[in-house]
Amino acid sequence: MRDAAASGEGEILEGIRRRAAVERRGGLVLGIGDDCAIFRQRGAREDLLLTTDLLVEDVHFRHDTHPPEAVGHRALARGLSDIAAMGGTPRICLLSLAAGERADARWIARLYDGLLRLARRTGTILAGGDLARAEKTACDIVVVGAVPRGRALRRDRARAGDAIYVSGRLGGSALGLEKGAGRAWVRHLHPEPRLRLGVFLREHVRASAAMDLSDGLSLDLRRMALASGLEAAIEPPPRFPGASLEQALHGGEDYELLFTARPRAKVPARFGGVPLTRIGAMRQGQAGAVYLSDRPLAALGYDHFRDSR
Amino acid sequence: MRDAAASGEGEILEGIRRRAAVERRGGLVLGIGDDCAIFRQRGAREDLLLTTDLLVEDVHFRHDTHPPEAVGHRALARGLSDIAAMGGTPRICLLSLAAGERADARWIARLYDGLLRLARRTGTILAGGDLARAEKTACDIVVVGAVPRGRALRRDRARAGDAIYVSGRLGGSALGLEKGAGRAWVRHLHPEPRLRLGVFLREHVRASAAMDLSDGLSLDLRRMALASGLEAAIEPPPRFPGASLEQALHGGEDYELLFTARPRAKVPARFGGVPLTRIGAMRQGQAGAVYLSDRPLAALGYDHFRDSR
Repeated sequence: MRDAAASGEGEILEGIRRRAAVERRGGLVLGIGDDCAIFRQRGAREDLLLTTDLLVEDVHFRHDTHPPEAVGHRALARGLSDIAAMGGTPRICLLSLAAGERADARWIARLYDGLLRLARRTGTILAGGDLARAEKTACDIVVVGAVPRGRALRRDRARAGDAIYVSGRLGGSALGLEKGAGRAWVRHLHPEPRLRLGVFLREHVRASAAMDLSDGLSLDLRRMALASGLEAAIEPPPRFPGASLEQALHGGEDYELLFTARPRAKVPARFGGVPLTRIGAMRQGQAGAVYLSDRPLAALGYDHFRDSR
Repeated sequence: MRDAAASGEGEILEGIRRRAAVERRGGLVLGIGDDCAIFRQRGAREDLLLTTDLLVEDVHFRHDTHPPEAVGHRALARGLSDIAAMGGTPRICLLSLAAGERADARWIARLYDGLLRLARRTGTILAGGDLARAEKTACDIVVVGAVPRGRALRRDRARAGDAIYVSGRLGGSALGLEKGAGRAWVRHLHPEPRLRLGVFLREHVRASAAMDLSDGLSLDLRRMALASGLEAAIEPPPRFPGASLEQALHGGEDYELLFTARPRAKVPARFGGVPLTRIGAMRQGQAGAVYLSDRPLAALGYDHFRDSR
């Protein structure tokens, strides 16, 4: 078994990060490696969060099965979920759309309808983008959010002894993709970015670390543990009705939040109807190691440069 | 002959703009329709410029002919050129890369090398991005720049009587694409974003309007005239050595600046070695109409939704 976070996408990103040689200059507070970059303008009371996410035909969606409104919704939801993970509030978004051969003007209009519906509901303004032709469709969503200066939630701030939580029930998106119908399919098509929860975690829970679950709990928790220099020990997470343990552990695109908090932090059992479940704790040990019920858990979440879907 | 700015890409973008129903709220000063969106944070002395640009395999470059370093350079240059067009200074960039089947780890590393070389030279920090697999490569570059509050150069501010200028000599990129060798090919592979010129036009020339030439003078000038509610009358622009008049008028990807200034504004003949040439004037008339030597000029620049390359 190859080690996902140390190969494939992880390795390539690490190489880029080293070459980018990011220093804390030019207003950049945090660069490559978290859900968003953090940018600080002189005089501003808020830090800006910037994130960009790709959605590629035949990788993240299929033309035959995914309605264009859902493609637009999911494109924006991916970016909003990154803003939620850092406790931010979305402000504006830009969409770059390479429209594939099967994406006609009507299909494109419906994609924007789905995107704009979610944008309106979350107070996000579509401020621009780019449009080009391609063989297959690829969308890149850019979201800019804001968070009070110095208060963004990061994935590298978990401490030994912190409790580990997840929002919602996991594996729904993977189950939906398998079934292609029913509640899980709806969940797959219309993930709900946990924006209000992210703000709550920052303001009230004072979470020590947070990130969103985009590539599967096993891989994402490994990334958080690695960034924080700790190991993580968990029990099986709550599952979406009908999802297998495998789907809950390794299925991607749930867009729930993974976060840590001091052991005595007051974390309600639910927030806005979404369960918040303590699944384990961070501890000293081998940075990035994850244990499920005391046995090593392989990071089988989705890695674009190892897997193919 | 169809009317490019009123069909194809123009029509689709206009539909999106209407549906986005952008209002001046949430810090957004300028939305869809210019080179960059303008975003203003409370308390900040500078406005932020945001732009996103796609570069798609077999549309904007070919794997067999374009070295990966040049693809990286051109991806970033596209975004930087938008910042230059508004008189801004680049701060950070993010690259979303959907790596195609022929893009192996070595090719990707070389793409980042080309991008990072230009980034370093222009003071732009690579702050993040996304990485995914796809059949063909698509890069989306996001650049965030800054400009003193309320001072960004826009394309919709030209006034009747203003002189029209272009930087550099046009048609080099189109000629290079045709030849595949020589100086024009180098020009095509390594366009130089006119960042210092953009700042000079804002600070010293006090240009009334500006935009970059990405889709060809005929189409881009039409867009500026349309945005400003004027018509434009020009003479043949300076040509890159060897380029035809057609290439200079309609060839895309020159990334020179098109700008207007009051008739008595002091515009030097050269700036930083780049010629600045007066090619005509704006006047009252049919918004968006362009005349070359007193004859109507069709907007034959590149439109992704009308042409195929």
